[in-house]
Amino acid sequence: VDFRSDNVGGAHPAVLEAIVRANRGAADPYGADLWSQRLAARFNDLFEREVAVFPVATGTAANALSIAMFTPPWGAVYCHPNAHVNVSECGAPEQFSAGAKLIAVPGDSGKITGHGVERAIHREDAVHTVQPSLVSISQASEIGTLYTRSELESLSEACARHRMHLHVDGARFAHALVALGASPAELTWKAGVDVLAFGATKNGCLAAEAVVLFEPARAQELAYRRKRAGHLISKQRFVSAQLEAYLTDELWLSNARQANALAQRLGAALQSAGFALATPVETNQLFVTWPASVAANLRARGFAFYDWGALGPDVYRLVTAFDTRVEDVDALVTAARALRVQDATSPTKR
Amino acid sequence: VDFRSDNVGGAHPAVLEAIVRANRGAADPYGADLWSQRLAARFNDLFEREVAVFPVATGTAANALSIAMFTPPWGAVYCHPNAHVNVSECGAPEQFSAGAKLIAVPGDSGKITGHGVERAIHREDAVHTVQPSLVSISQASEIGTLYTRSELESLSEACARHRMHLHVDGARFAHALVALGASPAELTWKAGVDVLAFGATKNGCLAAEAVVLFEPARAQELAYRRKRAGHLISKQRFVSAQLEAYLTDELWLSNARQANALAQRLGAALQSAGFALATPVETNQLFVTWPASVAANLRARGFAFYDWGALGPDVYRLVTAFDTRVEDVDALVTAARALRVQDATSPTKR
Amino acid sequence: VDFRSDNVGGAHPAVLEAIVRANRGAADPYGADLWSQRLAARFNDLFEREVAVFPVATGTAANALSIAMFTPPWGAVYCHPNAHVNVSECGAPEQFSAGAKLIAVPGDSGKITGHGVERAIHREDAVHTVQPSLVSISQASEIGTLYTRSELESLSEACARHRMHLHVDGARFAHALVALGASPAELTWKAGVDVLAFGATKNGCLAAEAVVLFEPARAQELAYRRKRAGHLISKQRFVSAQLEAYLTDELWLSNARQANALAQRLGAALQSAGFALATPVETNQLFVTWPASVAANLRARGFAFYDWGALGPDVYRLVTAFDTRVEDVDALVTAARALRVQDATSPTKR
Amino acid sequence: VDFRSDNVGGAHPAVLEAIVRANRGAADPYGADLWSQRLAARFNDLFEREVAVFPVATGTAANALSIAMFTPPWGAVYCHPNAHVNVSECGAPEQFSAGAKLIAVPGDSGKITGHGVERAIHREDAVHTVQPSLVSISQASEIGTLYTRSELESLSEACARHRMHLHVDGARFAHALVALGASPAELTWKAGVDVLAFGATKNGCLAAEAVVLFEPARAQELAYRRKRAGHLISKQRFVSAQLEAYLTDELWLSNARQANALAQRLGAALQSAGFALATPVETNQLFVTWPASVAANLRARGFAFYDWGALGPDVYRLVTAFDTRVEDVDALVTAARALRVQDATSPTKR
Repeated sequence: VDFRSDNVGGAHPAVLEAIVRANRGAADPYGADLWSQRLAARFNDLFEREVAVFPVATGTAANALSIAMFTPPWGAVYCHPNAHVNVSECGAPEQFSAGAKLIAVPGDSGKITGHGVERAIHREDAVHTVQPSLVSISQASEIGTLYTRSELESLSEACARHRMHLHVDGARFAHALVALGASPAELTWKAGVDVLAFGATKNGCLAAEAVVLFEPARAQELAYRRKRAGHLISKQRFVSAQLEAYLTDELWLSNARQANALAQRLGAALQSAGFALATPVETNQLFVTWPASVAANLRARGFAFYDWGALGPDVYRLVTAFDTRVEDVDALVTAARALRVQDATSPTKR
Repeated sequence: VDFRSDNVGGAHPAVLEAIVRANRGAADPYGADLWSQRLAARFNDLFEREVAVFPVATGTAANALSIAMFTPPWGAVYCHPNAHVNVSECGAPEQFSAGAKLIAVPGDSGKITGHGVERAIHREDAVHTVQPSLVSISQASEIGTLYTRSELESLSEACARHRMHLHVDGARFAHALVALGASPAELTWKAGVDVLAFGATKNGCLAAEAVVLFEPARAQELAYRRKRAGHLISKQRFVSAQLEAYLTDELWLSNARQANALAQRLGAALQSAGFALATPVETNQLFVTWPASVAANLRARGFAFYDWGALGPDVYRLVTAFDTRVEDVDALVTAARALRVQDATSPTKR
Repeated sequence: VDFRSDNVGGAHPAVLEAIVRANRGAADPYGADLWSQRLAARFNDLFEREVAVFPVATGTAANALSIAMFTPPWGAVYCHPNAHVNVSECGAPEQFSAGAKLIAVPGDSGKITGHGVERAIHREDAVHTVQPSLVSISQASEIGTLYTRSELESLSEACARHRMHLHVDGARFAHALVALGASPAELTWKAGVDVLAFGATKNGCLAAEAVVLFEPARAQELAYRRKRAGHLISKQRFVSAQLEAYLTDELWLSNARQANALAQRLGAALQSAGFALATPVETNQLFVTWPASVAANLRARGFAFYDWGALGPDVYRLVTAFDTRVEDVDALVTAARALRVQDATSPTKR
Repeated sequence: VDFRSDNVGGAHPAVLEAIVRANRGAADPYGADLWSQRLAARFNDLFEREVAVFPVATGTAANALSIAMFTPPWGAVYCHPNAHVNVSECGAPEQFSAGAKLIAVPGDSGKITGHGVERAIHREDAVHTVQPSLVSISQASEIGTLYTRSELESLSEACARHRMHLHVDGARFAHALVALGASPAELTWKAGVDVLAFGATKNGCLAAEAVVLFEPARAQELAYRRKRAGHLISKQRFVSAQLEAYLTDELWLSNARQANALAQRLGAALQSAGFALATPVETNQLFVTWPASVAANLRARGFAFYDWGALGPDVYRLVTAFDTRVEDVDALVTAARALRVQDATSPTKR
């Protein structure tokens, strides 16, 4: 039973069906197809304004393209030390921006603040240092926490003061949306966000992400950047069809709600079983503290999860997804609870 | 009826079925899944030696990663002026290689020769010029012609003399393979090819290409390059499954044979109808000379194809694919033939 | 006696004296010194408008920075096949622009035309090809020829039609200026030039070039680019002092006049001695056709010059400079004339 | 009186004289001149082994080229947070390496340790993170402190364990050398250093630095990198002549000794006047804590120095150089001492 990540799962049947349905006759290549055109209109509706949307196959591509749009080679990008763009993309933002610098801004709960960003900026010495260009956050964050609207606004005000832009890595944007009860517009451009990496793969698609640019006048530049990075897919209808199905009948929201609910259920049960959580459960990730013996034992029984030393020793990450089964959640709780009892009564404790 | 390109079509049903079948439970992400492991073994078999295979979503990515593996930023890549990497990738090879230079080497029939490459090399002035690093060819070429084994060997000998490597853009590799009646090994490493961009999208897949590296010791570097370019797909099983289906039961070869056969049929019929072909039909592309009125008329009747000024005025490209229907081919011939007659009898000719 | 290039010579005594004079006490580093400030004012005067001037140490840096200012990574730069930026800078323009593409536009007399550039542009296929961004010419050209004001205007009109900018590699700008009898303003911004790599090293300095940007509002970007490329010199006063001396009392113009005059003298004498010139002598370079035996014989006598196969077999380049001595010119002529006679009377000619 | 930095001064007369002397007749361009050849031999002697030496005009260029030699685009460079390469080069290392990542490793006294570097390395997740490639230190450090030979060895052992290389930013290498009483070889390759940015500008030259590569077999690659970055100077004799004079009669060592001695004198006097130093004086920089009123008063009297908030509030940096006059040092001490007394007796203290 695999709680390692929400990328170990498959695709939602409705997404697969959409792909199969899209396999009909000829279609214009390179995004001129009808699916992509419909998708563009749908994103405009979704965000309550005109946006430019560029489907791509990976979140790394969506993030790196977004960052490059607003960061010159001599630019600085401020982000949390543990940001995916900082530690898990093998330098893609640096490559796409032709050598920009990511500057880690410490922050509690996996989040950064406008104040923290401004403290990190030092550009008294104009020509010698990289120049403040972008703030990049993950919503939900890498540890599943959420930026409230007022936190977003505080960040965007800091951006405005320093002529920076604001990027959101939305690999788990749907999970944030339903948890915050906000609209896509409220969590993005209405709060000052300039570009969103809209994730869908982790929440039901095969391989479908999108850059959503809230400055559509610059869409042509992004088109060149995407093509040049090898991320313009010739039969794009098959990516757009995934995204269309993802948005249809609020599939994305119900998928995210389910994942979040299971994480809540799992977190509550683990706490009631006596295990501490390293952070409150806000979306579909949770971080539990287990004695090493418990973790080892659970793994021996077939439960999979990652160590998460960044949040302290003996912390493990559990991720739920749209396709996590409630019985698997309960089985994990039952097994952990049993080990807890065993551990509590064991004469030699770790 | 769309003869514009072999990327306007969809996917082969067997490929779609493989995707649907792969959607079963959890799988290791980022290429550690079973589908990708099986695929690696299958490519070893296919090429009769150990290779390193890296699935990606686009041909541009496959080409640009291949080129970057063998071309330092100060390197020169020799290719045909009309090579896809030179004119149709918006500078992806330059981006992936951090600024290498593509040098156009003229050549007949859409092909370059070892002699032509060597004439283009001038490095007497060692430090001032970019350095010969790679020869890049398309097999089949951009106009559907083929490099014979001896032509390949002549190129690889030129490479050896100048310590260059040899790259094949195999967007239509299957079509070349069946037309030449050679084995994958014979057309690649046995003939001195170092890296192949193995295309599958144009011949039956949704979005599946692969870099095949014949120097597997350097696979780790390619892994970093792919990740950093945003081309490591998290749910890679869905790409590997496409490629697996593509190779199963020789689907790729039968698809290519069918496309090639229809191009032959089309070419022969157009010639017998009195239209000249700009090049012999060797694979699944043909280039026909039509009076402008014929072309306009055909388009008005719903036939789609591209102008191809590179081969002369009034030249048009027609491409067949695995899913081209024979009745569409015949309909085009019938319509063209009728216009020919009309044209011949018209008092005012163009 | 060295006619290989105008970079084999030393510096003009007045330039050296200026360096020695500048070595007095403390000065603000990184271009905030008084010499650099005076230089900025002087360039404004020289060009009859406000410009932004950035001293650097090499012509390659001046060119590559200029190009990068107006060429995005997905941009195309149109230039003559033999342009210094295309063949003699080991890919510096590609590096500084993060991967732009230089496109060779053939042209007679070492020059390109607006018409030639427009013929080379094909951007019907917007996202797949690199985008027209810059035209780059050398004034004087690599073979010493000159762009007249009307030729410049024809180029800048082509630029305007395609929203491109115009760059001049002015490694030998002074030589062009005096030969054309035009003002710096007339040969640059008044004719539509956006940026000039202003050369001084070849005409009397040690190591002093400058980027002259005719869009001073973008100076800050250029400041970052220069710093980031390692071309902001800490004790910049020593470069600015060179340029100041270079401009004082029209030293640069008299140096260039002298070099041009010697090239004329040399060209006329060689022609009267029966040797053909491959191009008319317009500035300080000439290209003479010598039988191989003559060239070898002259070299054996201590005369140095380069082969110049680009202009045909048996063509050799001779370059005069501000410090070329008239007696050395005459000695070369005398020696060549003697060999000519010998050659003419020799029974076995090449 | 300017204590801001050792780059506000001029050049040593012996260096200027060498430039003037080098201005004699023709010389091979691009480093093939006799001065550069002699210099190469001299560096071999100096470092007691064969090295490859590449003169350039700036320290930023020397550092960025050094880093790029050992850091692939997906590489990580470990350095102190305040390293010049990290905060004062506007991203040059990122540009030259095509997008590598600098990772700040905290450390006391302006230095990093092998242990600190190893703690910062996390590459369990091979393909997702940038890969450990280089450790970069400044010797002397940015705050004038020194790496002992055993500290160097500890760093190079960490490098060996992780297959990294070791770079030294030697902008003030001479100051470190005389302070440590070690030989150039002992402080570099004998201690595991792979490449040194050998500074000379701050210690008596106009604009002369050099990359010293202790793996001369890779010199050709560095030659391409230097040219391509615009750092191959055509009349290189004028840079090599500076470096030659700099090394002759141990000018570099006596210059550095003098600067260090004045810093010692200044530090001792300031301490005896009751001002605390933020770090011990080890080379030619010192960091003094002054009440803001004292600093303001001194500035009003014409003394120039920088704020250095990185070492705490009210900390100021004073730098001595080869051309700092002892009377200026003493004048500063006298003025500060007077303000100290005044401050101590003032009823309202800050």
